Amino acid sequence: MTQSAAIPARSALRDPLPLLQRLLRCPSVTPEDGGAMAVLAQALEGLGFEVKRLDFGSEGAKTPNLWAVAGPIEDAAGKPAPFLCLGGHTDVVPPGPDWAQPPFAGVVADGSVWGRGAADMKGALAAFVAAVARRLEKGPLKGRLAFLITGDEEGPGRHGTRAVIEWLRAQGVRRPDFCLLGEPSNPTHMGEIIKVGRRGSLNARVVVKGVQGHVAYPHRADNPLPRLVRLLDALSSTVLDEGTERFAPSSLQVTSIDVGNQATNVIPGSAEARLNIRFNDAHSGASLTAWLEAMVDRHAPGAALHVDVSGESFLTPCGHDVALLAQCVEDVTGHAPALDTGGGTSDARFITHWCPVAEFGLVGATMHKRDEHVSLPSLEALTAITERFMVRMGV
Amino acid sequence: MTQSAAIPARSALRDPLPLLQRLLRCPSVTPEDGGAMAVLAQALEGLGFEVKRLDFGSEGAKTPNLWAVAGPIEDAAGKPAPFLCLGGHTDVVPPGPDWAQPPFAGVVADGSVWGRGAADMKGALAAFVAAVARRLEKGPLKGRLAFLITGDEEGPGRHGTRAVIEWLRAQGVRRPDFCLLGEPSNPTHMGEIIKVGRRGSLNARVVVKGVQGHVAYPHRADNPLPRLVRLLDALSSTVLDEGTERFAPSSLQVTSIDVGNQATNVIPGSAEARLNIRFNDAHSGASLTAWLEAMVDRHAPGAALHVDVSGESFLTPCGHDVALLAQCVEDVTGHAPALDTGGGTSDARFITHWCPVAEFGLVGATMHKRDEHVSLPSLEALTAITERFMVRMGV
Repeated sequence: MTQSAAIPARSALRDPLPLLQRLLRCPSVTPEDGGAMAVLAQALEGLGFEVKRLDFGSEGAKTPNLWAVAGPIEDAAGKPAPFLCLGGHTDVVPPGPDWAQPPFAGVVADGSVWGRGAADMKGALAAFVAAVARRLEKGPLKGRLAFLITGDEEGPGRHGTRAVIEWLRAQGVRRPDFCLLGEPSNPTHMGEIIKVGRRGSLNARVVVKGVQGHVAYPHRADNPLPRLVRLLDALSSTVLDEGTERFAPSSLQVTSIDVGNQATNVIPGSAEARLNIRFNDAHSGASLTAWLEAMVDRHAPGAALHVDVSGESFLTPCGHDVALLAQCVEDVTGHAPALDTGGGTSDARFITHWCPVAEFGLVGATMHKRDEHVSLPSLEALTAITERFMVRMGV
Repeated sequence: MTQSAAIPARSALRDPLPLLQRLLRCPSVTPEDGGAMAVLAQALEGLGFEVKRLDFGSEGAKTPNLWAVAGPIEDAAGKPAPFLCLGGHTDVVPPGPDWAQPPFAGVVADGSVWGRGAADMKGALAAFVAAVARRLEKGPLKGRLAFLITGDEEGPGRHGTRAVIEWLRAQGVRRPDFCLLGEPSNPTHMGEIIKVGRRGSLNARVVVKGVQGHVAYPHRADNPLPRLVRLLDALSSTVLDEGTERFAPSSLQVTSIDVGNQATNVIPGSAEARLNIRFNDAHSGASLTAWLEAMVDRHAPGAALHVDVSGESFLTPCGHDVALLAQCVEDVTGHAPALDTGGGTSDARFITHWCPVAEFGLVGATMHKRDEHVSLPSLEALTAITERFMVRMGV
């Protein structure tokens, strides 16, 4: 353990760049940790946090997780102090080929920091830490701060954020008032979007059976395809909703139909289709499953329906804390951010069951692509926004 | 060439069985001839026919064909004499395994002749020849008789009956008044069905293009499947017709839909479907192609449509000759045959463009299956029917 020797001084942490470079040099491609969690733990220890590693999973294949807390949990009057949780992950997706800069070197060039994870989301972790360092320069914390960090957000995530929250619940740890998750929420420039929820996602597979036969004798066969296409047309052309206050309209996409019948004179005996529904808060996995079952009963009775709800939709109430975060974003960037619920999934789907969560981070334009990078001004802006938000929350 | 030595005497041909056994012993699996055409040619020469081999195709892969004629083409007054053509094929489909009797031995057992081609249709060829032998016992022919025989009816047939008819047209050979094609038209017993036409067949392939994308961002993609399933539902649910006087209703069967998209979160960029239409005389290949094009324009504009009309429907006018054939069938079998147009294709689709054609032969219950066989009484019945038909036509 060289950890204690490497604990940085607080003053060295007020600039997010050196910490980001150290994190980028750790090749933490899921499920590898690459030393990234230890780098973060050392920085938080340098800022006086009580750091707990919560590495769950089976021996030899443990998921690195970290829970770190600092500051009073009650104010002088014994009332609950403001409690902000900062969330994120240290793991990254594989770099792929053909980078202009080495993906795990933390090179600074052309006003940006380059490397896999710069945007998604080691940059946000470094900005969060730097914001805390700057806050501490102004005096002791008035409220509670926590870091909830996992090393498996890009992978299956079985033993990541979800498991940490289960552990925190079991320990009776007080729920934070708010969690800021540092996912790269801005498509093209800082201040564009705060994500306050996500659509749910459901996959379904339909198998319609018939009786194979010769096309010249259709009365001796039973073609499953008329039932299947009738069903799929009915599903595809249903308007699930017109969108809700914070959500785009739900969307059903038939993703594949496969029969694999090579013979032009044969009526197939079986046909299969798959579909995905991204759904908003007007629906649930259960309500959509019931609807699919009714549609199958009506248009393709007897067909087999297999449904897998991979996530329910969620929406963080857009009250005081979200408004405050939006104000801080506008104060620093000059842009009033939109409150959005689009895009794919993140660990916010686990955190939402514990405390209100919103996602705001760097610019994601290069995330998951080659030549991932973030500009130095955007890194500074996220640091300033985060510090301002802590202060305005009373932490 | 041992042909001349093998020419049988007329009296040896009045029984169809020995000739059928000789034909069954020739393993004439398409495209092989196995000596079958020579056996038939020798028999016809024995009956005084002028036999012409018309083997078309490329050197080393010629299709064996035969055209044989006998009898006067004009009567004593110089008017056209009645002209009957007997049609058929010597080739057979592969035997496959597990026969109770060897498939190329012509074994007689349990009152039947066993072998590949017994029903489809060497049995009919032997009955036709025997009928001519019996007719000649009663005196010289009063009209014209022809045999139009191919060795490629079960295969692609490019150089078979179609090519022979082209040659006959080019030679200016007089069209027969009627052609009796010896396909096994009876499903279960002699006298059941005379086939007087066939449905047409059309294959189509539709390819709908879209734009691939992520299911979470459907507005950035263009899913081709809603258009495809809408089109296929519209096609499948259209009633093409209610059937016509001699035909069953036309039938459209979607035979395959293939996307091959394994990813549950990806909207596919392209989708393909195939379909077959078996159509009656209310339609033509051209009218159905125009209808398909209009349906594609309406439901999946821009999709690529590929149509292949493999055969038009045809119907032989059910006038004097068909009525006479039906009467002869009823006289011999005691059953009034139905005039039918069902089932798959045969060389009748080529002959119909030359002269009126009807199909009547043995019982097809075992055709294309293992243990193909025909009963000796059915062979005798077909011989008697054919002789009677020749006499009643005035040949």
